[in-house]
Order: sequence, then structure tokens, then C-alpha cells
Amino acid sequence: MMKILPVKGTRDFYPEQMSRRNFIIDGWKAVSVRNGFSEYDGPIFEYLKMYQQKSGDEIASQLFSFEDRGGRALAIRPEITPTLARMVNQKINSLPRPIKWFSVPRLCRAERPQKGRLREFFQWNIDIIGIEDCLADAEVIFTAVDYLRQVGLCAKDIVVKISSRKLLAAELVAIGIEKARLDSLYVVLDKRNKVPKDAFEEMIKEVVFDEEKRGKVLDLMSVDSIERLIAIASQDRAVIEALDELKKLFSYLKLMGVADFCKFDISIVRGLAYYTGAVFEIFDSGSELRAIGGGGRYDNLLADFGGQSITATGFGMGDCVLEILLEEKGLLRKIGSVNIDYFVAYTDKALLDKAVEITALLRSAGKSAEFSYKGGGLGKQLKQASALNAGKCVIIGAEYIEQDKLIIKDMTTGRQSETDSASFLKQI
Amino acid sequence: MMKILPVKGTRDFYPEQMSRRNFIIDGWKAVSVRNGFSEYDGPIFEYLKMYQQKSGDEIASQLFSFEDRGGRALAIRPEITPTLARMVNQKINSLPRPIKWFSVPRLCRAERPQKGRLREFFQWNIDIIGIEDCLADAEVIFTAVDYLRQVGLCAKDIVVKISSRKLLAAELVAIGIEKARLDSLYVVLDKRNKVPKDAFEEMIKEVVFDEEKRGKVLDLMSVDSIERLIAIASQDRAVIEALDELKKLFSYLKLMGVADFCKFDISIVRGLAYYTGAVFEIFDSGSELRAIGGGGRYDNLLADFGGQSITATGFGMGDCVLEILLEEKGLLRKIGSVNIDYFVAYTDKALLDKAVEITALLRSAGKSAEFSYKGGGLGKQLKQASALNAGKCVIIGAEYIEQDKLIIKDMTTGRQSETDSASFLKQI
Repeated sequence: MMKILPVKGTRDFYPEQMSRRNFIIDGWKAVSVRNGFSEYDGPIFEYLKMYQQKSGDEIASQLFSFEDRGGRALAIRPEITPTLARMVNQKINSLPRPIKWFSVPRLCRAERPQKGRLREFFQWNIDIIGIEDCLADAEVIFTAVDYLRQVGLCAKDIVVKISSRKLLAAELVAIGIEKARLDSLYVVLDKRNKVPKDAFEEMIKEVVFDEEKRGKVLDLMSVDSIERLIAIASQDRAVIEALDELKKLFSYLKLMGVADFCKFDISIVRGLAYYTGAVFEIFDSGSELRAIGGGGRYDNLLADFGGQSITATGFGMGDCVLEILLEEKGLLRKIGSVNIDYFVAYTDKALLDKAVEITALLRSAGKSAEFSYKGGGLGKQLKQASALNAGKCVIIGAEYIEQDKLIIKDMTTGRQSETDSASFLKQI
Repeated sequence: MMKILPVKGTRDFYPEQMSRRNFIIDGWKAVSVRNGFSEYDGPIFEYLKMYQQKSGDEIASQLFSFEDRGGRALAIRPEITPTLARMVNQKINSLPRPIKWFSVPRLCRAERPQKGRLREFFQWNIDIIGIEDCLADAEVIFTAVDYLRQVGLCAKDIVVKISSRKLLAAELVAIGIEKARLDSLYVVLDKRNKVPKDAFEEMIKEVVFDEEKRGKVLDLMSVDSIERLIAIASQDRAVIEALDELKKLFSYLKLMGVADFCKFDISIVRGLAYYTGAVFEIFDSGSELRAIGGGGRYDNLLADFGGQSITATGFGMGDCVLEILLEEKGLLRKIGSVNIDYFVAYTDKALLDKAVEITALLRSAGKSAEFSYKGGGLGKQLKQASALNAGKCVIIGAEYIEQDKLIIKDMTTGRQSETDSASFLKQI
């Protein structure tokens, strides 16, 4: 005899929790489909080296890795973007473009479990591959907002903070930062809202040694609107182009009716190395939780995985932070109630066989139906029917024994009608 | 630059394959729900020892195991029944009975990939906990058949082969086999239809040394109907009880309308140690494939996992063999076609903005809608609309520029109507 516990940082989904998970995930799927995305998925494990080489440092340090019998080094997937790149590269010549795909992978990361961060979670991913125009970035952001609105969140609950890696790069280069140092600077800039101001300035000192340049970087990072950015930005062509693109992105978002959810925020940098254009993160308005999701344009990733150079943009949204927010806003209250079509009640043990037969017939006809193994008093069974929100109750009782009649009780109106069993069975 | 392949024995689900997977899994879920089961799930990995101690030897030898940073020995789940036992035991006092649960876990086994057997797969599991009567076994079998019928298979395509571990045990004890040797004998008897007759007899020799007893075991295993079994069975009370229960199970299956799918077959033993009553496996009629699924009653498992002694019955059905069979029977042909509500076409690049706006409005209203990034000729866009099986096409063209009118084309009837854009937008 042994007693075993679940592993820390994982979740057991009892039916109640499972219906919340299904509510979140079914919504992701439905909104993806109505926005024109097709579902894909990859294996739960891949070659370890795939993640070691191309994921961000943080993710690469959180891998659950193992060896199979053949000595292959494998890892449970911590993200699905590398798999997406691999799959698209494998069939690039036969896939019509744009490739608009989504997935809802189960992912695992060996990190310390904390609020909104678990070692196993689900993540909605959508990607558009093959469209360079920022209209694709806008469509990706729209789809995220479309979902959040669908589950009941509004513009006062959440904010999509948007910036541009291309713009940031152009401006940093204009300031005089070497291109080769940009990646390490991004990692620091990404911390701006995650660490105290002093600590942030100390971190920058370690990457930007020159005091004047450092001052300019700090000025840039304190810009709070596109207008202010335009005022201080350099007149480099690369900067102007990136600015124009960012303005165009915001105009598309306005056209799509989601401008009130969106805000320019230069502190959005994204830790991952592979972003090349627009980047965004979604937060609760109070910013009390971690990011609900985030994404951006990654134009080099497919080539990095050995494929052609093809432009792409996408985002990911996990279930953990989202569920906390939905719970806080009271948007999960109505979930999980069962609604069956029929409950089949019987007033005598000897009628159980008939109840079994009718239940099976209803189910075979595509109706959801339940009966009680125990039986017991009719009142008790009707209570059970109500608990399951049965639409109708079929009662097999004295009328059946005496005249072969079933009683059909409408559980909403309470109205009862009699029908002979043969014609009821024929009708279903 | 690197080129990485998927790991052998895993699958990439491109949209086409994904829609087949969804067809199979969505059906499992819907049929479970209409049969009164609630969905649950556990983590993708658990403590290694959970599987080493209680899974069958075959499964225990096929674990993908690894250590986390804390040095805990973990394994990706090869089956979900141990998780079910753990979860039920954790909350046994607060769960109303019977517990009727289902799950569709992703499972991994480190075995050699072959037809119908992969290293990663999905498995439908349903279980009824807390009902001792064989009516629960019948309900489990009915639910499996209800699904197979739902996806288009009929009694001439598949057969549910049913036997009873309880009956087999009672009869083997009556023959004179020691109780302590039963488990090792089951493993051999389970091979009866999986190895040649000679090899089978050789294997039995290694477990049953006495020639007379061996002859009786072989006689028992060649029985081909319940009637024949009754004729040769011992008159032990345990045997008679087990026989009565098996007859009762078949009478329930008849009552439920699935008798034509079911057949008594004494060679169904099930390798796993934990079965204690009815056992069954589902095959294609020609038995050309591996088992599509199987299950049975396991009355000791919850206690084995440190819980109370509670009776239970259930089954599992994987997606790999099932998909091969559905493919062979031509039942997957219609799957995967997209059906969108609206396609928004535009005749001039300058009208793209309007197309984007209308598409976003349609989607926000819950309609599935698509537009073309490229635009191009109207004929080309209408073709794209047809490829997506669009119900309607919104055409933004000269009429929009001149008179603010949209053309709505019904793609089924081909009929076109004009509407001014404001009233169209108000209507959606």
C-alpha cells in the first residue's frame, strides 16, 4: 500500500477545474477559427538541442530533459514556436501562404512554482507566416483582444502594451550602441518594469559604459507616447521607417475597433532574442499580475531553423495568469454546470431494466441521458434530475406497469404528459 | 543554421492531421458526456515510482523517466489509471458516488514504433467507481460501442470480445492451480491469440507443470461459447457465481441494444495485473489490427494506491489503431473542410482598409470571416471564398466607392443583393 502525491507545480484537473480549463481552451479554439486560423500541434517532446540553441536563455535553463533508450537527448517542450518553425520548414514548398495557424500546446518548464507560474501549463499560440505588412501584426493583436472580449473582459480590465524592436534597434544604433551589443541590452531593457528604478539603472551601466549614451538610452526608455517619441527620435531613415510602421500598426488597430485596448509602451522589449519588429504584451490594467500574453514579429526564426527566410508574427497566451484574472473578475462563475437532455427515473427496482433500455436508446439517438444506479424514491430521483439540469424527466412507474405508459415531465415548466412507451421510443 | 527532425515515433499534426485528431477526440468527449461522464485530467508527468509499482510489467519497461532539479525521479505518464486512482483517493470523502469520469490523456511509451503503436498517442479513458453490479461494466462497454457506432462503424466492422477474470480465476482454482500462480498464468493465457498454438502450449508448460491440469487449462481455453463453458465448468460455488454474473452482463448488453457487437471470448485475459472481474477488448472483425481498446473491472486498484477498497470498472481506447480502421473504412473522408460564414472581398488596394474593418466587425460579432492580404482580381478572391466554403461573400467594389453600397453574394445560391454599408454593419 502506498500513498503518492502529485508533483509540485503540476495540477490535478478534477471535473470542476477541468470545465474551467475547457472554457478557456474552447474559447481560444473558437476565436482562432473565426479569425481564419487552422489548428496544428507537434509532439510533447523534441530533440533537446532544438531548445538549447534557439529559445531564450531563461527557457533553455528550464528544460525537463531526458534520454531515450537509444541515447537520444530529448526534452519536454517548453514552448511550441521551435516546433512550428520545424514543421513549416519541412513543408514550406507545399503550404499555401499566408500560413495562419494556431495551437494550444501543453508545455512544461522546470521553474519554481509561484502565482500564475506553474511547471505545466497550456498556452494559446497563433502565428501568421508570409505577410510582411504590419497588418498581420494587427490581425494577431486583434485576435488576442477578440478572445479577451469574448470571455467578458473590456478595455478597462486589460491593456495591450505595444512597441517595436525595429524602432528600438534603429534608435539605439542612432544613439551609438553597437549592433553586436543590442541583444544583451534588450535583456536589460526588458527588465525596466520588472525591477526597481535604481537596480535597472545599475544593470544598464553594465552594458552601456558611456555615460552620455546611457543618458540617451534612459531618456528613450522614459518616453510615454508616440508623439513624445517622435519629438526626441533621431532623423535616421531607419528610425523614421520604423516609426511610420508603428503608426500604421496603430491605425489598423483603430480600424479593427480595438484601439481602446492598445497603448504604446517603449518598455515592452520581450526577452526572447528572436523578435525583429512589433512586440507586445497584454496586462491586467492594474498590472498586478504577470503578463497575460505577449508576442511580436520574428522575421529570422524560420531561417535560423534551417529554412528559407520568411517573415512571421505571432503571440502566446498561457492559461494560468488568465485564469486568475477571470476568477478575480467573476467571469468563471457560471462554468461547469451540467445540462443533460433526459433523466430516466423508475419507481421500483424491478423497473431498472426498462430504465437502462430507455437510457441507452436516448444516448444512441445522440441525447445526453442519465439514470440512477441506486434508484430510491421518485422525489430523490427528481432532485438528482434537477441537479443535472435535466431538460426532461422520463418516469417509469405504476402507469407503465398497468398501461404501458411513460410520464414525461418537462423540468422547466413542471408540466407532465403521458405517452405509451412504444411511441416514445419510436419518437427518439 | 540547423536542420532538426521530429523524434521517431512522434507525430506532427499539420492542420489536415489535426482535424482528424479533433474528429476522433471531439467524438470521444461528446459521447462521454451524453453517457453521463465528467471530464478530468492529471499532469503529464508524475512520480516515477507510481508507475513502477502498479503498472503492468510491459508499461513499466516503457517509461520515459527523468529527474528534476530537486532530484525527484519523474516519468511522463504512460497511462492515466494510476493518476485516476491517486486523484480519487485524495478526495474520496467529498466525491459523490458513483464517480463517472472520463479523460483523453496524451500518453508516452518508450516502445519501438510500429503500425498502430507510437511513442506518443492519445487515449480515451472512461471509468465508473463505486458500483459493484455488472450493470456498470455494461455501461462502460455500451459507451465504447456508442462512440464506435457514432463515427460510422457497425456490428460487421467490430467485435467486443468479453470474458471474466473472476470466472477464469475460479475455474483455474477449481482445476487445481494455486492462487499464488494465477498472475503469472494470466500473462501466458493473454498470449493465446498473439502467438502460434505450439508456442502457446510451450509457454503454458513453463507455468503449469502437471500434465493433467495443463490439459484442463487448454480445454478451458478452447471453449468458444458461454453454453460450452457451462457444459465443462466445475460446480464450484465461485464458478457458478462468476458464470451468473457474466450471463447477467450479456443480458444488460442486449437490453442496451449492443448485443450484436459483443461476443464471449475466453482468450481475453488482459495483461495488466489489476483486473478482477469482467474484461474485454475491441477488435476489427477481421482481427487484422491490434486491439482498438480494452478494459475491465479492477476492484483493488484504489486500495493498492493507499485508498479505501472501492469497486471500479473502466476502459481505454487509443487513437492510433482507431484512426487506421476509420481510414480503411473510408470514414475520415469528409473531415477537415473549413466552413466560414463570410469572405470579405475588395476590388482595389485602396479598399483594403474597409475590408479589414468589416472583417474585424464580423469576427467581433462571433462570425467566422476571412479576407485576402493580397487582394487581386475579384474572380480570384471568389475562388478563395469557395475554397473556404464561405456561406456569404461581402464584395467591396465600385458600388461602394460610388454609392456606399456593399454587394452580398450568397455562395450557395449565387444570388447577389446590395445593401448600404451602414445598415449592413448595424445588422451584424
